[in-house]
Amino acid sequence: MKLYDTRTAPNPRRVRVFLAEKGIEIPDVQQIDLSKLEQKGEEFTRINPVQRTPALELDDGTILTESVAICRYFEELQPNPPLMGTDAKSKAIVEMWQRRLELHFLMPVAMAFRHTHPAMAQMETPQFPEFGEANKPRVLAFLEHLDAELGQRRYVAGDAFTIADITALVATDFMRPARITRPENLKNLTRWYGEVSARPSAKA
Amino acid sequence: MKLYDTRTAPNPRRVRVFLAEKGIEIPDVQQIDLSKLEQKGEEFTRINPVQRTPALELDDGTILTESVAICRYFEELQPNPPLMGTDAKSKAIVEMWQRRLELHFLMPVAMAFRHTHPAMAQMETPQFPEFGEANKPRVLAFLEHLDAELGQRRYVAGDAFTIADITALVATDFMRPARITRPENLKNLTRWYGEVSARPSAKA
Repeated sequence: MKLYDTRTAPNPRRVRVFLAEKGIEIPDVQQIDLSKLEQKGEEFTRINPVQRTPALELDDGTILTESVAICRYFEELQPNPPLMGTDAKSKAIVEMWQRRLELHFLMPVAMAFRHTHPAMAQMETPQFPEFGEANKPRVLAFLEHLDAELGQRRYVAGDAFTIADITALVATDFMRPARITRPENLKNLTRWYGEVSARPSAKA
Repeated sequence: MKLYDTRTAPNPRRVRVFLAEKGIEIPDVQQIDLSKLEQKGEEFTRINPVQRTPALELDDGTILTESVAICRYFEELQPNPPLMGTDAKSKAIVEMWQRRLELHFLMPVAMAFRHTHPAMAQMETPQFPEFGEANKPRVLAFLEHLDAELGQRRYVAGDAFTIADITALVATDFMRPARITRPENLKNLTRWYGEVSARPSAKA
């Protein structure tokens, strides 16, 4: 089994944190350097034709791409600790939060970053800086909603830590390069962020 | 159990097709009219604070939103016929295709529609028409990739029809209002599209 990873990118980090929570270590890891456009090179394009990291190569040669698909593979192989719910309802609630966070938080943070950051001019062509900027107030509006929800329970999708917290943690830290400031008056969000950031997995 | 549906919108259709494939009928369905902005009204905002359809209200009052989360709930309740894979590897492959199709097909079609269609001026404020247009060639590039993949197997994620085919079908039909023409020279895509469109579930 071999993992294609990028230390500096948010999606591969989702997989690394997930694996750390599961206590799974993958010895064979290859770094793909996005700043050198290695993901668009011939070698990696054979691994993932849509030219994104992470990717996981199984021993039978099957390639899995897409962070959450890779996480689901490990969740099925090793269900404990459960990070994607345990029954029909909790699995659906985790998936709901996961997708809500992706659509209204991680994605607009990524759009702000990709369309406004000078370092992305090579990868996002053409950039639409005004579109990028328009994503910033959307992030802040969603964070108010998330803050209210986190006033009702310990973690994003319930009383247990799940993959939804991983997505929210990664999106929160990705706000910095996207140049969006986390509002410190959102007390529940701040409490939750302190808690999930202090988990050993956050360093993965 | 109550389903909040929108006949004219692509995401609620994903759930309707999924339910039709499972042979599940939900008698209590309420239509939410997006053209009247009912999804932004006080009543529906209480159901889904992020103001999108579909939503599913369970008998215990739990609200599930996000199409794929609703599908996952039914997949867990009634695993047959399986539409999201059957073991670790096939579940991961379905999820990979599902997400690849969302990110590189359904999402750019939606962005083209939302940012260029006059009917969306009320819902997508502000529209960025140039950004919308820039999504169209991305869709066409992805369809070439998908066509090559469909030359290797019957359905998107393998030999069995799955939720990934539903997402691809809905995205393909959504190209019309987004004003993107499906290239008829993509023979494998055309073969697959004819086949999935002919299933009774496609009318759901």
